[in-house]
Amino acid sequence: MTLFESLFGAPRVTDIFSAAGTVQRMLDFEAALAQAEAAAGVIPAGAAERIGQQCDAGRFDLVALATEAGHAGNLAIPLIQQLTARVAVVDPDAARYVHWGVTSQDAIDTALMLQLRDALALIDDDLSRIRRIARRLVEQYRSTPVVARTWMQHAVPTTLGLEVAGWLDALDRHAARLADVRRRDIVLQFGGAGGTLAALGGQGIAVGSTVARLLAIPMPLASWHAHRDRIAAVATTLALLTGTLGKIARDLALQSQTEVAELAEPTAPGRGTSSSMPHKRNPVAAAVTLAAAVRVPALAGGVLAGMVQEHERGLGGWQAEWESVPEIVRLSAGALHHLLAALSGLTVDSARMQANLESTAGLVYSESVTMALARHVGRPEARRVVEAAAGLAMRERRHLKEILAADPIVRAHLTADQLVALFDPKPHAAVSQPLIDRVLDADREIEGARD
Amino acid sequence: MTLFESLFGAPRVTDIFSAAGTVQRMLDFEAALAQAEAAAGVIPAGAAERIGQQCDAGRFDLVALATEAGHAGNLAIPLIQQLTARVAVVDPDAARYVHWGVTSQDAIDTALMLQLRDALALIDDDLSRIRRIARRLVEQYRSTPVVARTWMQHAVPTTLGLEVAGWLDALDRHAARLADVRRRDIVLQFGGAGGTLAALGGQGIAVGSTVARLLAIPMPLASWHAHRDRIAAVATTLALLTGTLGKIARDLALQSQTEVAELAEPTAPGRGTSSSMPHKRNPVAAAVTLAAAVRVPALAGGVLAGMVQEHERGLGGWQAEWESVPEIVRLSAGALHHLLAALSGLTVDSARMQANLESTAGLVYSESVTMALARHVGRPEARRVVEAAAGLAMRERRHLKEILAADPIVRAHLTADQLVALFDPKPHAAVSQPLIDRVLDADREIEGARD
Amino acid sequence: MTLFESLFGAPRVTDIFSAAGTVQRMLDFEAALAQAEAAAGVIPAGAAERIGQQCDAGRFDLVALATEAGHAGNLAIPLIQQLTARVAVVDPDAARYVHWGVTSQDAIDTALMLQLRDALALIDDDLSRIRRIARRLVEQYRSTPVVARTWMQHAVPTTLGLEVAGWLDALDRHAARLADVRRRDIVLQFGGAGGTLAALGGQGIAVGSTVARLLAIPMPLASWHAHRDRIAAVATTLALLTGTLGKIARDLALQSQTEVAELAEPTAPGRGTSSSMPHKRNPVAAAVTLAAAVRVPALAGGVLAGMVQEHERGLGGWQAEWESVPEIVRLSAGALHHLLAALSGLTVDSARMQANLESTAGLVYSESVTMALARHVGRPEARRVVEAAAGLAMRERRHLKEILAADPIVRAHLTADQLVALFDPKPHAAVSQPLIDRVLDADREIEGARD
Amino acid sequence: MTLFESLFGAPRVTDIFSAAGTVQRMLDFEAALAQAEAAAGVIPAGAAERIGQQCDAGRFDLVALATEAGHAGNLAIPLIQQLTARVAVVDPDAARYVHWGVTSQDAIDTALMLQLRDALALIDDDLSRIRRIARRLVEQYRSTPVVARTWMQHAVPTTLGLEVAGWLDALDRHAARLADVRRRDIVLQFGGAGGTLAALGGQGIAVGSTVARLLAIPMPLASWHAHRDRIAAVATTLALLTGTLGKIARDLALQSQTEVAELAEPTAPGRGTSSSMPHKRNPVAAAVTLAAAVRVPALAGGVLAGMVQEHERGLGGWQAEWESVPEIVRLSAGALHHLLAALSGLTVDSARMQANLESTAGLVYSESVTMALARHVGRPEARRVVEAAAGLAMRERRHLKEILAADPIVRAHLTADQLVALFDPKPHAAVSQPLIDRVLDADREIEGARD
Repeated sequence: MTLFESLFGAPRVTDIFSAAGTVQRMLDFEAALAQAEAAAGVIPAGAAERIGQQCDAGRFDLVALATEAGHAGNLAIPLIQQLTARVAVVDPDAARYVHWGVTSQDAIDTALMLQLRDALALIDDDLSRIRRIARRLVEQYRSTPVVARTWMQHAVPTTLGLEVAGWLDALDRHAARLADVRRRDIVLQFGGAGGTLAALGGQGIAVGSTVARLLAIPMPLASWHAHRDRIAAVATTLALLTGTLGKIARDLALQSQTEVAELAEPTAPGRGTSSSMPHKRNPVAAAVTLAAAVRVPALAGGVLAGMVQEHERGLGGWQAEWESVPEIVRLSAGALHHLLAALSGLTVDSARMQANLESTAGLVYSESVTMALARHVGRPEARRVVEAAAGLAMRERRHLKEILAADPIVRAHLTADQLVALFDPKPHAAVSQPLIDRVLDADREIEGARD
Repeated sequence: MTLFESLFGAPRVTDIFSAAGTVQRMLDFEAALAQAEAAAGVIPAGAAERIGQQCDAGRFDLVALATEAGHAGNLAIPLIQQLTARVAVVDPDAARYVHWGVTSQDAIDTALMLQLRDALALIDDDLSRIRRIARRLVEQYRSTPVVARTWMQHAVPTTLGLEVAGWLDALDRHAARLADVRRRDIVLQFGGAGGTLAALGGQGIAVGSTVARLLAIPMPLASWHAHRDRIAAVATTLALLTGTLGKIARDLALQSQTEVAELAEPTAPGRGTSSSMPHKRNPVAAAVTLAAAVRVPALAGGVLAGMVQEHERGLGGWQAEWESVPEIVRLSAGALHHLLAALSGLTVDSARMQANLESTAGLVYSESVTMALARHVGRPEARRVVEAAAGLAMRERRHLKEILAADPIVRAHLTADQLVALFDPKPHAAVSQPLIDRVLDADREIEGARD
Repeated sequence: MTLFESLFGAPRVTDIFSAAGTVQRMLDFEAALAQAEAAAGVIPAGAAERIGQQCDAGRFDLVALATEAGHAGNLAIPLIQQLTARVAVVDPDAARYVHWGVTSQDAIDTALMLQLRDALALIDDDLSRIRRIARRLVEQYRSTPVVARTWMQHAVPTTLGLEVAGWLDALDRHAARLADVRRRDIVLQFGGAGGTLAALGGQGIAVGSTVARLLAIPMPLASWHAHRDRIAAVATTLALLTGTLGKIARDLALQSQTEVAELAEPTAPGRGTSSSMPHKRNPVAAAVTLAAAVRVPALAGGVLAGMVQEHERGLGGWQAEWESVPEIVRLSAGALHHLLAALSGLTVDSARMQANLESTAGLVYSESVTMALARHVGRPEARRVVEAAAGLAMRERRHLKEILAADPIVRAHLTADQLVALFDPKPHAAVSQPLIDRVLDADREIEGARD
Repeated sequence: MTLFESLFGAPRVTDIFSAAGTVQRMLDFEAALAQAEAAAGVIPAGAAERIGQQCDAGRFDLVALATEAGHAGNLAIPLIQQLTARVAVVDPDAARYVHWGVTSQDAIDTALMLQLRDALALIDDDLSRIRRIARRLVEQYRSTPVVARTWMQHAVPTTLGLEVAGWLDALDRHAARLADVRRRDIVLQFGGAGGTLAALGGQGIAVGSTVARLLAIPMPLASWHAHRDRIAAVATTLALLTGTLGKIARDLALQSQTEVAELAEPTAPGRGTSSSMPHKRNPVAAAVTLAAAVRVPALAGGVLAGMVQEHERGLGGWQAEWESVPEIVRLSAGALHHLLAALSGLTVDSARMQANLESTAGLVYSESVTMALARHVGRPEARRVVEAAAGLAMRERRHLKEILAADPIVRAHLTADQLVALFDPKPHAAVSQPLIDRVLDADREIEGARD
């Protein structure tokens, strides 16, 4: 238990990486190994059965394991000792066959891969869920005007639908990336002491294939003890996802600012309160997601740096993964979990969006006017005219339309009605629709392929 | 020109990211834009032609551009000014239509995407080349005994073929990942000021599709100004590749150490010399590759961190990519370029490998003896016997075989001939062959699919 | 020249790290070395003079150097060859004594240290300047009310003076850290091939001390070829500074948002314009600073990772510094340079600050009321009352004061006048004054010590 | 409990950052706050006493706290609720005054600072210890010849004493840096909701100063809620230290390789064993230290990136510290703890060092010969002669001395005795002595100042 696992994590993923979750998956490997070896006639069937019966993490002393791992240098050594001792109590002969012909790293890496397999499945489910929520938001607000902001300044009108379609489009890409790593990078580790499987004589590949089948995880072409690109690919794929979650959380945080007030996370009693200010409702999901978006890139960079491992099995780089890879998965899953909850109860204030859009007295229509005028006088001259008018509007705090209506060049080329029509968010909403449809159509196609 | 671009880069990739290489691709965007707009009737055909004629980076003042970019805040502003001025000299009317209806980021991001497209193609070629070299090394040394080292200590016998097959297997996975990002993540940027393409009225998607076709780059579903997962995916995919290159270079550096001397980079007059020690031949390719493997993970972490961008177009995160993404590509390409050259001229000393393998007086066969004995007395007891014998062998500097031959438990279960047969690297080489074949077969399949 | 060196850099620091700036400092080392060796009688005085005369980077072929460095593996090898050849033209005898008794890394590291010395001096000057500007802002706006924002939500009243005093206080700490690294970590590199200075016989330390004196840089206790903590300390110290600059830029960007509009970067014709929207004035200095605050932490992380160098002189980690350390310095200096300019012309809209403060209809006074009430009913009960009132005020869009005035518990303990007095920013401004004075006093003390 | 806390941590530092260790320090803050407020007459003395009596982490439900923190968004909210409830049971009146006038972040940050203070003291002790061990190694092996290796190749003779003096010199610098952050960056956090201490009226600074005195931690000039340079400075200072520890561990790992065998970590039954190979003694301390040297730089980079915090108190960056800063401290302390143990029982094989030095048949003396010859024929010509001879020696596997003895240029300038004298490690050992003394003297001075 850590004080922050509930705040920063997703409960089911956190469980997978708990001490018991880790040890159980190492034991699953040992049980499957014994069973596969028995099937191949490498060890007696009875021994495999006896070993399998003891492979229950609930019966192991996790505190002792942690202490002994500190002495031995890895977790497999004391675990195999405990397992051997437990089997020996029941059947001393069977105890001779525990962990037969493999090496610590086979058990440790396979357990990690089983954890990643299980965690990525949960993450993929949550990713589907948040995509579904985003899709609904796009559909609901596809024509709701909101100001597009660039360089943190009001730019031009857009729609909330298109803004959220941008989120959805990115999330769809992450779904494809996640499917790739789940299919390609999650495999058994099985190489024995030096990757040759020599201790299993000619039966190494056969035994490994059975272990893989029993654990429902693919058998790789060869062992990959010192080649960590698969692990690092999981890390970077989750870091990419977390980057997008952070981007969405940043939008949410910015549009929830007191002065902006367009969006708000759902509230609940005691949620996001302040110990000093009773009126505060802090955006907790945004904070959690943004914190992950600060931490995960750095952690992923560390995993990438650790790929430079020595010879057949490395010194330092491998050990560096033991805590940092679970951390990346937990934080990514947690950010997704919290942001998903926030979006599913999102408060949208479309009146405030409209008010913000109009708050600059027409400046957000400067591009529209420029383009309309440019058809007559060219882009550079149109730009010059509107830039001067915008400057005047800001200095004199008057509406841009009013300034332009008095401008001789504008008057020469645009009628009063034409000018008024340029200061309308509706055409911007209209032009967003086909873009929104492209994103929605592609998203539906992905979802269809998934079903 | 920087002092280290030749040392750390690959010449053709470095060119792509030179000042001229960048500016030319921005101009390619502007030319294609004008042409597409003319085709759609948005601007006059003559204007497009005139604009296209000026889109030659060779005629632009790059030093002035760099200076003005520092004032304006981005490179597109002064470039479009210079381009407009150049067009105006020839045809003032045509100058009105430069950069019609789009925004700076459309030009800047598309230029980057064109650079990435071109650079990734070159990297993919070099990746094919280094895989071919690795394949040849695997085939040539498939039965050459070498010691497997784990935790930087001698472990068990393996073959150089299997060691290099591990490299090849990883490189094959990177080829698949690179193909994915090339197919999925390299796209046009086209959104206009706020992503709605409003300035192009209803013709935005049509114009964008033509621009995409002209530039031979896919049209995305929608613009992605503040969604940088594609850029970051390129960065992390290259970082993953660089991690594996670093791992290979680390192996090379370790096996080239004076005391180990199993491998050596090719030498050339003046290559890797020391200013103080005439006998030195420093492994330059390993140094360059390892340096990249230190730098690229950190740079990729920075790009991931920069993904948290604001609203429709961000402040800070986007600008952070302008130098760091090219840096990642240059360093990755350079590491690949240098390591490829080193492997293609690799010196292999198989006699030294054999000598190193035997240098520990039989210790590397401890697992073989343990497993042979375990069949009779169980793994724990066999381990105990061999561990004690190994300790004695080390303390008394005697051969492990000799110690074991005198051990009563060993004598009770293994004949003298059986014991001798356990101290032979050949069975280890033999057992490696099917693993090697699995890797080679898969590699050939990939290469076949590629052709 | 790179396209972004003006945008992201500070001109004088960029010059220091230019190709010529680097080569000149390597030549400065070679000249000082020859002179020191002549003084010690190690080489002839005439030779030292002839060598020194050729140590002018302007006469060297930098493009050839870059190319040859790519072949040789470092920059010193070809530079010493060019220098030797140049000296030989004038005096073949003198050419025998070029680079006498030292190693490439002595020249390369010392040149880097001289660059760092010079660049840190300029950075320190700019740091003094920005602190002076911050001090003036504190003094000018020490009582100007502004809302304190926490978790990106309005919290309580504070003053702009205290906000900027927070910036100043942090900048003062960075000045102290910078002074530490300048004093402690900038030293000569002088060890010869293996750190023993054996090639100089018993005169190594004496010669090194003279070189140090001639270059005006301290002589270290011993060489530090593979101990990079000094270099990494410069990197992290600048990363810490850049973190604070990024924090200030973030505040600036947030308070410059269209809806907030409390602060604005100075404008200039063509500065921060948009290619599509004539009304835009993008905050360029904030963008540059925030981009540095994304990039420098990652680069510093890379330098820290590269510290794990092998034996007497490393492979990979050292080479990784050659571009990344200059990059860190350039980006930090550039962020400081641009932010300094932005703060020196900062526009402050105190009326808008007041309006924003009052825009939540009294919610920012919730803590004040709570504390006043708590004196009578305890903190938990007071909190409960005010939290309920705040909720009602938000739901009914009424002023908090009005809701509270009708609350029986409030009425029981606070008079109407007392209640009104709690909704006033002045006491908050008053209470900020001693804090501001503490910061100003300390800052003046530092400045005094500096003079 | 985590499975790896014993392996990667130092027990006493791990305790400081345990759930109970964190909660206790938050309660220490609350108790000191109440006491200071009572002293200032802000709250009743009896209330302070009652509050102080409940501030015992042992009585709190940590699992509930963790769960509630996930809902509330920070740890202080539920802790203060639990504390208030506990006080209320005893004295409902006293419960009114819990956490009076401050904010969650004051408690959270101060608790972190108290943890850092305590942990850095322990780290400093271990740093003193490892320096003492290094000093002894320097003294013991000050004249023991060993080959200096550069770019992972044999270079020239040096001594183990000078090698370890390099470690000591770096560790001494870290001691100075650690003293700086302990003195400068460990301070109270005390600002209230918005940094003004308004809720304490005019007594904020006085109360804060008393809290600081009671907790034995300095009072800062002002609060620093969103200025995280102090926290980040602790992180980078530890990352710098960890970089040097990683460098030492890398040396240890390299010199412990089977083929090199110059150094070895101390062994113990069950320490560093392999589950498959009975002869293995894996260097566990090196693995742990190198793993930290991979992870800590990345984590520190993340903390630096998180410095860009918003306004008076940030969203995301602050929360990102809650787990990553403790992680940095734990990993740094653990690396130091394990490496210290390894060095204190270090096995040194000086015979092997001598053998390795001579294993290249004189090549490591190439610089000595070059310099001796250079006095007669100049450096370039001497280099040419020796480079050719070294090449011949390697190709023909003959001793360099023998080749040179037959060279006419060598014979013209050096007598046979002179040549023989150049192939002797003793002068290299001799010339190392004054450098070693400089380091030892400085180290003693530091230690003296410390006492």
